[in-house]
Amino acid sequence: MSRPRDTTIDERALAATLELLEEVGFEATTMQAVSARADVHASALYRRWPSRVALVEDALSPTVAIASFEPTGDLTRDLRRFLRAYAATWGSPAARAAMPGLLAHYQSTGAVRSEEEWLPISARPQFLDILRAAPEGAVDPAVDPDDVFDVLLGAVMARSLVPTVVERDRPLERTLELVLRMLAPRPATAARTDRRPADADHA
Amino acid sequence: MSRPRDTTIDERALAATLELLEEVGFEATTMQAVSARADVHASALYRRWPSRVALVEDALSPTVAIASFEPTGDLTRDLRRFLRAYAATWGSPAARAAMPGLLAHYQSTGAVRSEEEWLPISARPQFLDILRAAPEGAVDPAVDPDDVFDVLLGAVMARSLVPTVVERDRPLERTLELVLRMLAPRPATAARTDRRPADADHA
Repeated sequence: MSRPRDTTIDERALAATLELLEEVGFEATTMQAVSARADVHASALYRRWPSRVALVEDALSPTVAIASFEPTGDLTRDLRRFLRAYAATWGSPAARAAMPGLLAHYQSTGAVRSEEEWLPISARPQFLDILRAAPEGAVDPAVDPDDVFDVLLGAVMARSLVPTVVERDRPLERTLELVLRMLAPRPATAARTDRRPADADHA
Repeated sequence: MSRPRDTTIDERALAATLELLEEVGFEATTMQAVSARADVHASALYRRWPSRVALVEDALSPTVAIASFEPTGDLTRDLRRFLRAYAATWGSPAARAAMPGLLAHYQSTGAVRSEEEWLPISARPQFLDILRAAPEGAVDPAVDPDDVFDVLLGAVMARSLVPTVVERDRPLERTLELVLRMLAPRPATAARTDRRPADADHA
């Protein structure tokens, strides 16, 4: 009679990873340390995650609050809810402890992956869904939503990791307002007129 | 007769630091390694920089292009020039190699410093100067310029360090456009009306 498959292994390993990140930092959160803390054999960890980076990424991936996000069509309200969940993910002690180490890893390895390989640890799809659900005219079609997401991602990262921004500790609502400004349609005569002085020749 | 003070020490140490960051990474760029590469005694380094973090920060501080920045008053042109110089600073191989390590250091030490202590390594003053030099009406007084700088800082950091953003490799002009959108005055009836549904009660 074979032992029933232990379905709590994933859960225990991911919880142990978050605890260790917070307590001992990224470098010391090794597969061995997770194995000991979760009481899961290292071989069982490696069957599920090819590397500790994969395990850490999985432990930090967007929370259920983001993954199960259903836009209501109210752009401001949806973005506020999204931004809160996203900032909470980035701002957790485990994420703050892990992100510089992950960034160093990506930097030193080149970390080339396909778009699909990044998706499980990105909140980009949920952000794009919110914009798609917004009423006609609420988002300027001249703006690339992916560009806005890149800026939003950087803004949330800076709020968690860059000391001068962390110390300012501005309400998340200020970031939301700036995101809405990036998306808002602009009157035809708005401030783009001085963008390319050379265009004056064609006027 | 005393030896004349060697005025090239700073220069050699800073250049050696940038080379080492690029070649061997942040962790291996120690005071000892810089001392050997620059042929400067370690004690001479410690007289100038209290720690290797201070030395690395100094080597990476905003380039001359940013530090000597003189706004012309043309907001778009000034911001474009600023953004190019700032992104070049962040995007250099040495900066890409060092930033995750510096962020990890700030994270693990708490890194509490006064605003003044951060200024030498920040481009914030130059950004604020540009907005101050812009013509009346070009920047929405309802927007906090420091908030916009925080978002811009995050956007530039993401362009250099976050693989999904690095791989998209979007023209810097797209970031400039989004920064201009954040700053632009909005017509009175713009998309802020749905910001606080509760306000409807007072209408």
